[in-house]
Amino acid sequence: MKALHLDIWSDIACPWCYVGKRRFEAALSRFPHRDHVTITWRSFELDPSAPPIQDGGVSYAERLGRKYGKSTADAQAMIDSMTEVARQDGLDFRFDRIAPGNTFHAHRLLHLAKSQGRGDEAKERLFRAYFTEGRAMGDLATLNALGTELGLADVEATLASDAYAKDVRRDESDAQELGIRGVPFFVLASRYGVSGAQSPEVLLGALEEAWKGLSDDPAAAQDGDVCGPDGCT
Amino acid sequence: MKALHLDIWSDIACPWCYVGKRRFEAALSRFPHRDHVTITWRSFELDPSAPPIQDGGVSYAERLGRKYGKSTADAQAMIDSMTEVARQDGLDFRFDRIAPGNTFHAHRLLHLAKSQGRGDEAKERLFRAYFTEGRAMGDLATLNALGTELGLADVEATLASDAYAKDVRRDESDAQELGIRGVPFFVLASRYGVSGAQSPEVLLGALEEAWKGLSDDPAAAQDGDVCGPDGCT
Repeated sequence: MKALHLDIWSDIACPWCYVGKRRFEAALSRFPHRDHVTITWRSFELDPSAPPIQDGGVSYAERLGRKYGKSTADAQAMIDSMTEVARQDGLDFRFDRIAPGNTFHAHRLLHLAKSQGRGDEAKERLFRAYFTEGRAMGDLATLNALGTELGLADVEATLASDAYAKDVRRDESDAQELGIRGVPFFVLASRYGVSGAQSPEVLLGALEEAWKGLSDDPAAAQDGDVCGPDGCT
Repeated sequence: MKALHLDIWSDIACPWCYVGKRRFEAALSRFPHRDHVTITWRSFELDPSAPPIQDGGVSYAERLGRKYGKSTADAQAMIDSMTEVARQDGLDFRFDRIAPGNTFHAHRLLHLAKSQGRGDEAKERLFRAYFTEGRAMGDLATLNALGTELGLADVEATLASDAYAKDVRRDESDAQELGIRGVPFFVLASRYGVSGAQSPEVLLGALEEAWKGLSDDPAAAQDGDVCGPDGCT
C-alpha cells in the first residue's frame, strides 16, 4: 500500500506560508488518496536575528517601508494587497495588530506539538494567533498560553529549556542543503520540490504526480536513480 | 503562448544520465506540447578531481570494486546490471572499453555546441562516444575530433583556450545553490525539481504538471509566491 509523505518548510511569521497552507489544504481535500498522505511541517526562520519583540513603537507599514525603501503609504498598499489575497483564501490578516519577533521558540513549540501528534493543529493555531489575533510569537508567556490551550503536555518545561532546539536547527540546515531560500517549500515523496504558495490546482497536480511516482513494485525502485560524487545508485 | 523550459544537470561520465536522457526523450515524444519545450543541458562534474585519463592499466570493474570495497567479481555484477538496464532503454553500454577521465573540457565543448544551437546533438554524441565507443572524454584530441565531426565552428580554438570555463563553473555553482548532489536532475519551468533517471511515465507527468503551472494570465503570477529573508514576493 502506498503512502505519500510531504515535508513542508515554513515560518510562522510568513504571510505566503499561511496562504500556502490553505491552498494546500484545498488541494488535499480534492486528492483521492488524501488518507494516505502524511505531512511534516519543517522549521524555517525568515529572520533568525530578529529580537523577541520587534519595533514596539513603529507600525508594520512604516517598518516595511523602511525595509524596502518605500514610503509608508506605498508599504501600506503592499500590505493591503497581501490582506486581500489572504482574504480570498479565507484568512483574516490583521497587520494593524501584528506583533513581529523571533520565531525560534515558536518553532520549538511546534516540534513539541509534532512529537505529540498535534503538529498540524499547532501550526494552524500559531498562524492564526500571529496573523489574526496579534499575538507575539517571540513572547514565551504567549507561547506557553497557546501550548496549554492546545492541550499539549510539558509546554512550560519545554519552553523553559532548550528542548527541540536541535530539531529546529536540523530542519534549517536540511533546507540549506536542499537550496531552499524561500518559503513555503513543499517536498513530495522526497523527490519533487514545489516552491511557493501555488494554486490548489498546481498543488493537486503535484500530489497526483508524486502519487503516480510511488510504486508497490520493487523493480520500479530503479526510478529516480542518480549518480553522485560517491557513485551511482 | 506558453513555453516550457527545462534545465537538466548532467555529466557525460554518468550512466544514469544517459539512461535518463532516453527516458526523458520517451516522455517528450508523448507530450502534446513538445514543440513548446526547450532544454538546456547544464554541466555537472561527478569527479572534478579526476585526471585527464584515469587508471589506464586497471579494468573498470577492478576500479569500481576498489572504490566500493567489493571484489572485482561483485563490481562486475553491478556493471552487468547497469548494462542490462541501459539495454532496456536502447543503449549499448560497453564498460569493457570505457575510458574514464576528467570531463571539464568535454563540458566546455558542450557549451560551445549550445552556443551554436547544437547542444542536444553534442550531448548525445559525447554520451555515445563515451559509453559505446570507448572514447576518452578527457583527451583533447578526441574532443577536437568529435566537435569537428559535429560540424561545430571554432572547436580547436575553444579547446586550446579556456573558453566556456566560466559557464561550466556557473552551472556547477547553480547546482550547488539548488542543493543538487546527484544527476541527472531536471528543473522544469524553474519551479519543479525532479531527481534521477525517472521512468518516462513520471517524467511525462512532470512535464504535464509544469505545463499546467504555466499561465498566460498575469493575475495567476501570484502562484508560487514565497517569503524569503529579504521579504515576500
